[in-house]
Amino acid sequence: MSDFDIRISQKPDIKNPIMVEGLPGIGHVGRIAARHLVKELKARKFGAMYSDSFPPQVLIKKSGIIVPMKNEFYFWKAEEKDQRDIIFVVGNTQSSTPDGQYALTKNILNLAKEYGVDMIYTLGGLGVGRIVEKPKVFGAVTHKELIPELEKLNVIVKRDSIGQIIGISGLLLGMGRLANLKGICIMGETSGYYLDPNSSKAVLNVLMKLINVTVDMESLTKSARDTERRVAEAQKIEKKMMEEMGMIQKEPTDDVMRYIG
Amino acid sequence: MSDFDIRISQKPDIKNPIMVEGLPGIGHVGRIAARHLVKELKARKFGAMYSDSFPPQVLIKKSGIIVPMKNEFYFWKAEEKDQRDIIFVVGNTQSSTPDGQYALTKNILNLAKEYGVDMIYTLGGLGVGRIVEKPKVFGAVTHKELIPELEKLNVIVKRDSIGQIIGISGLLLGMGRLANLKGICIMGETSGYYLDPNSSKAVLNVLMKLINVTVDMESLTKSARDTERRVAEAQKIEKKMMEEMGMIQKEPTDDVMRYIG
Amino acid sequence: MSDFDIRISQKPDIKNPIMVEGLPGIGHVGRIAARHLVKELKARKFGAMYSDSFPPQVLIKKSGIIVPMKNEFYFWKAEEKDQRDIIFVVGNTQSSTPDGQYALTKNILNLAKEYGVDMIYTLGGLGVGRIVEKPKVFGAVTHKELIPELEKLNVIVKRDSIGQIIGISGLLLGMGRLANLKGICIMGETSGYYLDPNSSKAVLNVLMKLINVTVDMESLTKSARDTERRVAEAQKIEKKMMEEMGMIQKEPTDDVMRYIG
Amino acid sequence: MSDFDIRISQKPDIKNPIMVEGLPGIGHVGRIAARHLVKELKARKFGAMYSDSFPPQVLIKKSGIIVPMKNEFYFWKAEEKDQRDIIFVVGNTQSSTPDGQYALTKNILNLAKEYGVDMIYTLGGLGVGRIVEKPKVFGAVTHKELIPELEKLNVIVKRDSIGQIIGISGLLLGMGRLANLKGICIMGETSGYYLDPNSSKAVLNVLMKLINVTVDMESLTKSARDTERRVAEAQKIEKKMMEEMGMIQKEPTDDVMRYIG
Repeated sequence: MSDFDIRISQKPDIKNPIMVEGLPGIGHVGRIAARHLVKELKARKFGAMYSDSFPPQVLIKKSGIIVPMKNEFYFWKAEEKDQRDIIFVVGNTQSSTPDGQYALTKNILNLAKEYGVDMIYTLGGLGVGRIVEKPKVFGAVTHKELIPELEKLNVIVKRDSIGQIIGISGLLLGMGRLANLKGICIMGETSGYYLDPNSSKAVLNVLMKLINVTVDMESLTKSARDTERRVAEAQKIEKKMMEEMGMIQKEPTDDVMRYIG
Repeated sequence: MSDFDIRISQKPDIKNPIMVEGLPGIGHVGRIAARHLVKELKARKFGAMYSDSFPPQVLIKKSGIIVPMKNEFYFWKAEEKDQRDIIFVVGNTQSSTPDGQYALTKNILNLAKEYGVDMIYTLGGLGVGRIVEKPKVFGAVTHKELIPELEKLNVIVKRDSIGQIIGISGLLLGMGRLANLKGICIMGETSGYYLDPNSSKAVLNVLMKLINVTVDMESLTKSARDTERRVAEAQKIEKKMMEEMGMIQKEPTDDVMRYIG
Repeated sequence: MSDFDIRISQKPDIKNPIMVEGLPGIGHVGRIAARHLVKELKARKFGAMYSDSFPPQVLIKKSGIIVPMKNEFYFWKAEEKDQRDIIFVVGNTQSSTPDGQYALTKNILNLAKEYGVDMIYTLGGLGVGRIVEKPKVFGAVTHKELIPELEKLNVIVKRDSIGQIIGISGLLLGMGRLANLKGICIMGETSGYYLDPNSSKAVLNVLMKLINVTVDMESLTKSARDTERRVAEAQKIEKKMMEEMGMIQKEPTDDVMRYIG
Repeated sequence: MSDFDIRISQKPDIKNPIMVEGLPGIGHVGRIAARHLVKELKARKFGAMYSDSFPPQVLIKKSGIIVPMKNEFYFWKAEEKDQRDIIFVVGNTQSSTPDGQYALTKNILNLAKEYGVDMIYTLGGLGVGRIVEKPKVFGAVTHKELIPELEKLNVIVKRDSIGQIIGISGLLLGMGRLANLKGICIMGETSGYYLDPNSSKAVLNVLMKLINVTVDMESLTKSARDTERRVAEAQKIEKKMMEEMGMIQKEPTDDVMRYIG
């Protein structure tokens, strides 16, 4: 039984909200997407969650200040008639053990139930092991009736073989369905080698249409261009090294991947 | 202490049933065999079981619909005098931790006890690390008096050295015996490299004789032929590649193994 | 919290006994030694212990009968004035997790306390990574006053650097000392590559003098000779293969190691 | 839920103390530094803590006496006006599991709270994967106002990218901050290949200025010189071997690393 410490600083005044989850995962595609939305919508933080199922470590910000491993809850109130209030689940970690992942899921679903959430969007990456320039977007759903809308947005839902979603983005939908919640997982293709804001952008473009929200994408586009430039440079250097050494370095540098949070 | 969520949709009207377990394992030999029997006998689902000891993930069906990790219970009522009612335990996973495996076993044995089960058949594969054309069938038992019947069916029971059964197929018998249940584990030889319906067929041929049940084997035979063809093709391609590259690729492709559930 | 199922079949009529532990470990040196003593002394089984912290598997005897993972308790009543009653802790496994090992230790110490044990002998192997013909015997103790007697028997107690004892043989003494029990760990040098009855014999020769017990060593000597012959054969074959192939096979075959129980 | 056994032998007569933690970690930099301070200040032991989350083993001292895995609490009473009383947390281990690390942290923080600690100094190493002659000292803090004092002592606090502190030295600050404690982690550069008293010395030189304590550094300087000499010798031998064999041995010998405790 993992121990969770949930701290709600203010009960948000929201009605019948949807939930959007973007915690760290492959390429941090979901985390970057959800954080961008939180920032651009100026969503407000209303709680944090700590757990002894999180990795036994802390992060150090560039300033030297320590940050515990945590999940955070933000809310945003709808501004237009065709929009709905949103609860965001973001943070710098998922749980570090199998049963901790299930316990984390239950805690998030409890919070969802408490505020009347009936629909969850989970965001993530789909690792393909090669650099992807135009990331495709894949979808998975809890209920058949959610498929047409996704396919209209060119999201790939049907597939040739059985797939899997590892971690919180899958569990929230799997256990959510057992608790009568609906849900969609939106996954952007990503190499899995580095943080991938370009894939986050593709995921966000789908999500925004699904939930009738539009935000400025400028800073995300800039991050994507920066990453692209760094990757191109790294590839140039790698190619040169290979030519000089007459060998192939298989594992790409994970320098960029070390950034978590 | 793992958490289990058992949902019985309808108490089946069965008397003094036997239990047949076929959960995923090496080559998915047991799972394929049990599912074939469930399908052909038109056994009816009466419950499902979820647990935070299962892997923290969900599966995505080809349709794009999410499936949680789960075990399912089916029942079948005997139609002839020499048959007995059957409870089937099938599903897409075993537990992901050692103590979770024990807890899973206890939950299944509790259900067995509740319905008066006194005999358990567990089905599995025996990995031998090489392609097997005519899989032998091995057996292990909780009580000496169960051996002659197996040996009459050419099942190999005695062996030169101490063996082991890892996972639920072994634990159900080991813990079952401590709870005064009898049991037989039937294992089909399999390479361990891919799903092996051919080995499942060999296991099923033994089981059907033991429990006086006969079902159509056509679809299983077809699956076995398909696998055989795919393996033959893969071997041809591999051989060609080796000839071209002058090297040996040791790990066989696990493309087929990815299918779970 | 691991779950333990302790089944005492008969309260043994013993007074102020010592305890001897020999569970599986490196080279199974302790297990083989303790079992030999149990057999030759005709010690009587009085209980068994099962746990969900044990590996999630069962063993299959050569006869095809399944054996659960377990620890067993035997007792022996002293026959001479200078002897003491003995409780033996033997079995086919230790726990499979760190906290399971601590829980196992606590359960054994509880039993020790219940019967008034004040002295524990734990038996084990010390892996040295090379074939050992005349195994040295090492000792470690809970209390300084236990050292002279060991050194008189040529057991090596003092060492050049800090050492460690991993598993139950160490924990029983470490936690035992905290509960005011005394204890000695006797370790025989062993390669770690295969079951080593020769090392068990060296350990037993020390133990027997410490507890004033003498048993026939014939069957252990025979096992040791068999192992020696098998190792010599394996080395000859290996050497020949190396000469033929012009290469060195580093990992020795672990065929013999597979025997557990 | 890990089990902790805390044994306080005498309630120390201290007021408003600070806490200094130095448990084993990379290069044992923190452990060596804290132990040196405990020894030179003649701090007095007032308690010990055992846990089933510690590694399932014991250590053997050179004398042959067994030592359980444990943490120990020492206290020291301030002697000058500008000093504060100190509680030291030292020992031969951290927990062996993620949730065990969190539980260990909570137990230490409970003790800190009980004695009125409001400031924690945690000591550790920063592994850089190469031999370091003049180790730099890095710092991380719970509160911004703690930074200037560190920077005055040439401790590197700001960094180019997000970092992390794995284990108890980070958790004590991360969870401590949530419990309204302040804290500083002082990390010395170290190769990570062996025990590094030279890095401990650099860390201690910073700590002593922060807490207005001065102790004799002679024995630590001697240990550092011994290590240096051993490393230089090992490098010379390694270089010679490489020249003789025409190859490079990548992993440095971890003989020295085996010393724990």
